[in-house]
Amino acid sequence: MAKIQKRTLRGGNMLNPTPVVMVSCGNTLDEYNIITIAWTGTVNSDPPMCSISIRPERHSYDIIKRNGAFVINLVDRKLAPCADWCGVRSGKKFNKFMETGLTPIRATAVCAPMIEESPVNLECKVTQVIPLGSHDLFLAEIVAVHVNGRLFSPKTDAINLQKADLVVYSHGHYYTLGNIIGKFGFSVEKK
Amino acid sequence: MAKIQKRTLRGGNMLNPTPVVMVSCGNTLDEYNIITIAWTGTVNSDPPMCSISIRPERHSYDIIKRNGAFVINLVDRKLAPCADWCGVRSGKKFNKFMETGLTPIRATAVCAPMIEESPVNLECKVTQVIPLGSHDLFLAEIVAVHVNGRLFSPKTDAINLQKADLVVYSHGHYYTLGNIIGKFGFSVEKK
Repeated sequence: MAKIQKRTLRGGNMLNPTPVVMVSCGNTLDEYNIITIAWTGTVNSDPPMCSISIRPERHSYDIIKRNGAFVINLVDRKLAPCADWCGVRSGKKFNKFMETGLTPIRATAVCAPMIEESPVNLECKVTQVIPLGSHDLFLAEIVAVHVNGRLFSPKTDAINLQKADLVVYSHGHYYTLGNIIGKFGFSVEKK
Repeated sequence: MAKIQKRTLRGGNMLNPTPVVMVSCGNTLDEYNIITIAWTGTVNSDPPMCSISIRPERHSYDIIKRNGAFVINLVDRKLAPCADWCGVRSGKKFNKFMETGLTPIRATAVCAPMIEESPVNLECKVTQVIPLGSHDLFLAEIVAVHVNGRLFSPKTDAINLQKADLVVYSHGHYYTLGNIIGKFGFSVEKK
């Protein structure tokens, strides 16, 4: 194969695409806030755990540290403008639930609100906070999950997440999901 | 707004979509391996850092721990079958570079091969390994990045990652990226 021409750059954040989620936090209506985060991911199966990275100067940082909890709300196409807005505005200046019109509902197991309009909510209990430099990494156990009823297949009762119309983030742009290329294991499937 | 009907489930990994990358590792041709990972993400800006989660029983686990290094290779549509195959087969039984025909090239700053055919390679130096239960979380500094020359805009010399045709993973399926909904900040842009 012909050699592929590459350019070498110094270290940088080029891991794409990434999730883009709205993280909600706070123990009281006054404290409630939403921060949009692309630096998040699943980190463990058993127990189910995820991570989010937050700069200490962000308004949500202290709220999440104080309550030891947050909710990850997945973002669909309809919620994308709200997610973007919550990512560029600060909770120091805006009541984000009021301004976006999103509805806070009580989580069942952690001190944080969930966003009702989100198709999937993950209740997260912080287990560890690791300072890394510009950001602190919050590791958390996912203690409960809420899924919009319309995402369950009427036939099999399995979750069909395609119906959620989730968005994804890549190098500064929000995208819809495109075509399915295959499902896990497709490369070894017998025809 | 009418109340949205939701079903509550116990904690589980429902954070979607996720990246899907091929992680290459090893210090010698014999040791070279590729493991496909969806549980990865950016965790810090300064210094640039990412994380990958690996089960200790995986073949790549010891290799990465021994060398303190790995390379994240982004996956485009053409590489998706290879990524899937490297995710379902073990390096204990297969020489994955040989079987897939992918080309290992020497990284510039870490003890690991890069996959030449990947549009973007991130050289990663492990800084911390945190056992979480089923998986260990590897935190790493991104010390160099290599980008296929054709991804640079001829006019602006900026990286146009859309050209890379990256794939994304969501709840068991590989997808292409769909339509652009907006770019970061679009919700507050003046028309």
